[in-house]
Amino acid sequence: MEVFIEPIGRLMNEFSKLPGVGKKTAQRYAYKVISMTEAEARSFADAVLNVKKKVRFCKVCGNFTEDEVCDICKSRDASTICVVKEPKDVIAFEKLHEYKGVYHVLHGVIDPMNGVSPNDIRIRELLGRVAEGGVKEVIMATNPDVEGEATAMYIAKLLKPLGVLVTRISRGVPVGSELEYADEVTLARALLERKQI
Amino acid sequence: MEVFIEPIGRLMNEFSKLPGVGKKTAQRYAYKVISMTEAEARSFADAVLNVKKKVRFCKVCGNFTEDEVCDICKSRDASTICVVKEPKDVIAFEKLHEYKGVYHVLHGVIDPMNGVSPNDIRIRELLGRVAEGGVKEVIMATNPDVEGEATAMYIAKLLKPLGVLVTRISRGVPVGSELEYADEVTLARALLERKQI
Repeated sequence: MEVFIEPIGRLMNEFSKLPGVGKKTAQRYAYKVISMTEAEARSFADAVLNVKKKVRFCKVCGNFTEDEVCDICKSRDASTICVVKEPKDVIAFEKLHEYKGVYHVLHGVIDPMNGVSPNDIRIRELLGRVAEGGVKEVIMATNPDVEGEATAMYIAKLLKPLGVLVTRISRGVPVGSELEYADEVTLARALLERKQI
Repeated sequence: MEVFIEPIGRLMNEFSKLPGVGKKTAQRYAYKVISMTEAEARSFADAVLNVKKKVRFCKVCGNFTEDEVCDICKSRDASTICVVKEPKDVIAFEKLHEYKGVYHVLHGVIDPMNGVSPNDIRIRELLGRVAEGGVKEVIMATNPDVEGEATAMYIAKLLKPLGVLVTRISRGVPVGSELEYADEVTLARALLERKQI
């Protein structure tokens, strides 16, 4: 980046650390910052520092929160726990405004190929929540990929002896999609898990 | 963004101000920042503030610099001035490692439809540089669009009485492209400005 003066090259380098940001995009972002007012740039920088200072993990569900326990855990029906891989999956469900229960964020899935064992994700914490009682259903909502399925099966096996209902989100053809473009595995699954209408 | 807690929503809002960044991308960037170490986030924020503090415009050419006069103006052949619209155009030329002259950044082009008159861009400064003497050639390198062409013509008319050679970068079919896909205006131009081989 030697064609850029140091402060610009440095900022571009920082922007390049964001997911999917290459040199060209980093340059556009850096130039945008240069064109900002002093106050705007400060507001930007403050927001970056603020998020690191204020955001922590809910000690119950593991989702992002500003407090010790998150608003969802504080106010919602704790008899249903939706288990997800990451905080962004909570956002996906919350956007539906459908689900009234609480969550449990695993912060990963079991993935032996990449050295992630059951002890590396928040399974123990989930078992603890269920063991405390009051939980009627645990919905396994990990991704419908190999690791997500394996993790859901693994956790389900541990939960069943505790006498709780364990469910899995349904897999099938996406609503609004065309069958022609569905992959074979998904289509086979949709056929296998067909329901009476 | 009410599904996000305040610090995350606030950071997403800041990221949304960057060019081409929508809600989804802003969320990915914000989550990346959350996953950074304290030191990494500070380094990011510092780079943002640093660029605003250190970067200013060269008082000769108008390009970005950390000093009063930029390195290019200080060290290069000042008898040739390449006139461009924006600092990023300087980067485009510098990446070639071909051009040995200096630049003049207009910080815009004449655009009456959007209220940009000749007095709003750095034309006066360019005339001043040429009037001081020592300049042999001024290369008009504004974009090959309506405003860029008009601005180049306008400035050329002002410069010619000063006895300086004024040139324009050539327009034609892009190197490596296929004629089939060239737009009509470009192809017509390429034909009109054909050269003997």
